[in-house]
Amino acid sequence: MSMKPGWPELAVVLVEPKLDLNVGAVARAMKNFGLGRLLLVSPGCDHLSDHARALSCGADDLLESAEVFSDLDRALADFKLVVGTTARLGKYCKPVYTPAQTAAKIGELGIAVPVAIMFGREDFGLGREQRRHSHILSSIPVNPEFSSLNLAQSVLLYGYELSQLKSGNRVTESNDSGKTGGDLATHAELQGMYAHMRSTLEAVDFLNKSNPDHLLEYLRRLFGRAAMSSREIRIMRGIMSLIDNPRKPTV
Amino acid sequence: MSMKPGWPELAVVLVEPKLDLNVGAVARAMKNFGLGRLLLVSPGCDHLSDHARALSCGADDLLESAEVFSDLDRALADFKLVVGTTARLGKYCKPVYTPAQTAAKIGELGIAVPVAIMFGREDFGLGREQRRHSHILSSIPVNPEFSSLNLAQSVLLYGYELSQLKSGNRVTESNDSGKTGGDLATHAELQGMYAHMRSTLEAVDFLNKSNPDHLLEYLRRLFGRAAMSSREIRIMRGIMSLIDNPRKPTV
Repeated sequence: MSMKPGWPELAVVLVEPKLDLNVGAVARAMKNFGLGRLLLVSPGCDHLSDHARALSCGADDLLESAEVFSDLDRALADFKLVVGTTARLGKYCKPVYTPAQTAAKIGELGIAVPVAIMFGREDFGLGREQRRHSHILSSIPVNPEFSSLNLAQSVLLYGYELSQLKSGNRVTESNDSGKTGGDLATHAELQGMYAHMRSTLEAVDFLNKSNPDHLLEYLRRLFGRAAMSSREIRIMRGIMSLIDNPRKPTV
Repeated sequence: MSMKPGWPELAVVLVEPKLDLNVGAVARAMKNFGLGRLLLVSPGCDHLSDHARALSCGADDLLESAEVFSDLDRALADFKLVVGTTARLGKYCKPVYTPAQTAAKIGELGIAVPVAIMFGREDFGLGREQRRHSHILSSIPVNPEFSSLNLAQSVLLYGYELSQLKSGNRVTESNDSGKTGGDLATHAELQGMYAHMRSTLEAVDFLNKSNPDHLLEYLRRLFGRAAMSSREIRIMRGIMSLIDNPRKPTV
């Protein structure tokens, strides 16, 4: 699978993976976040085994299209950025980027740049020589007293973080309310609602006569921070209308 | 484990988990990111089984300190923010926050606020009634053509994202609502307000008789994401009382 034009071409590189189960689980993790290119360097297992396929939960296509290399240099040759993942934070590893910082770094590269995220063996991680192929190093900040992430979970976290490059959730301005801008009420609609609230609540003496804005200010803060949609404005004005035109008590 | 003072007190709430394996794997995922409080609501399995312990990979302490409830309302009563996770993105669920936006939202609440992240059953997720306990809804943006995250992986991703609240990687200090955590309404106060709204708006036929929840769902999303204070709850209930007991027209 190729990434859409306009996004970095992200590939996951597994160096000397030992267990077919793990390669399958990695494919599953990748596919959740739209990562489609898998490279295996000197694998110690059969990535097309039944076990690998079962653990991929339907991401067999990634296993079948995996590119297998015996040489790390050749595998990495065409990438513009190679991120080496490591749990080791020794002094020769500085600086180490978090996944979020890594994503930001990749985002800075601009479009259609081939980027490799490299993971080492399940038990040892990347060896020192392998690590030296990295342009940058990255590490997931886990609980120092309990670090227990397996290979597929690590790939999952990077996949999640990197997928946000595509959706633009993080690198660009996030829309705090989770809505599209088109849905958001205009300033005029919001002001119209506040004016309606003021006239309604004044008419029924709900506001303090000497300081009506005291309570209105609370309402402005409440509704202002909610980033209301046009629809929500209409609902709130409908509720005000219930006070404007009370139904007759059904005695 | 209690969180350090100065950070939101994050709890993972599993609603009706079916398999002990999954509860164990959730504990493991949590501990990686320093989440220490686990609530189980009506569990369908033994969270202290050998299987659960094995899958926790050394996070037995979280299993042993897990709090078990038979009632969701009681489990959630003392939380100031309840995040419901969902894979469903129906129109009544808008807005749905990404994990990153959820973390930002929690960061805005300020320090030492108890926050619950709620996950539904492995096969169905949160049911409609369960989802209504959410102040905000959150969903992991996965590949629409291949969505295959298990329960522990979902917890892992939220744990990762929320752990960045502590490290301060992402969330700025700004307290958007200008409130301190102590001011925030409890879940029980919020549910009380919704119940009041339902009875008021039903009594005046403002709700669609065949589907009263349609409009109420909009109100839940609106007020849920606003992170209301106790004072604001009292104001909104005061406004409802104006509909309950209309002033006589001053003719």
